[in-house]
Amino acid sequence: MSSIKKMIVEWKGNYRLEAHNEKSIAVKFDAPKEHGGEETALSPMENVLASLAACSSFHVLTILKKKRQKVTGYSVEATAERREDPPPRVFTKIHLKYIVKGKDVSAQAVENAIKLSEDKYCSVGGMLQKAVPITSSFEIIQE
Amino acid sequence: MSSIKKMIVEWKGNYRLEAHNEKSIAVKFDAPKEHGGEETALSPMENVLASLAACSSFHVLTILKKKRQKVTGYSVEATAERREDPPPRVFTKIHLKYIVKGKDVSAQAVENAIKLSEDKYCSVGGMLQKAVPITSSFEIIQE
Repeated sequence: MSSIKKMIVEWKGNYRLEAHNEKSIAVKFDAPKEHGGEETALSPMENVLASLAACSSFHVLTILKKKRQKVTGYSVEATAERREDPPPRVFTKIHLKYIVKGKDVSAQAVENAIKLSEDKYCSVGGMLQKAVPITSSFEIIQE
Repeated sequence: MSSIKKMIVEWKGNYRLEAHNEKSIAVKFDAPKEHGGEETALSPMENVLASLAACSSFHVLTILKKKRQKVTGYSVEATAERREDPPPRVFTKIHLKYIVKGKDVSAQAVENAIKLSEDKYCSVGGMLQKAVPITSSFEIIQE
């Protein structure tokens, strides 16, 4: 069973690009100043790193909700090592640090949710892990 | 030679997430309505597909500029086949159709620029091609 996903990407001058899906929901791209861009938006590689963390987060948050964990705050610090030379300037290591804030949040539940997301559900991770080692850790802030 | 890239992703309730880099340049994520989201922003997988096309476009446009091609308009249609079952719901095929508009644009220059971008320079493609076959085509609209 499969589906089709389509994105249109349009050039807006210099390094500015705008992409939209079939429902006109959009995202912008730009390059860093050191590469001639204007920094009006994230670069494609920054977007990919954010997408990995966001994708995994959707599943982690869903699983924690199903396990009736009282999560009141949540963030991820995604850190990547990037090869600068030779091209392509790919990520060579990625680490995701999940920070979960809540009341009586179970460390076991958080650990299991991250594992299930990373090993089974996260689509972006399912692709990127073929190209780059991804590790993770977590911190729980009890309220 | 390598560098470090860091993104912070924060949960904003339901499936809404916001990511930002060290310069506070941000991108938002949401889920489609059929998965419980509110569609206020693209999903992580839509973002990855857009990022691939944007990354390759940066290089294609740069190379065409170096080759003194008079490009007046440019877009990419990125189409992906996505496995719906079993998880993870990864892309199983990606096709990029580059559409270049300009005056006396050389087909050879466009073909070479795409090849160089995809084979050598595009970082997002350099990672994704380890996980999914990526094909491309192009169309030139002479003004």
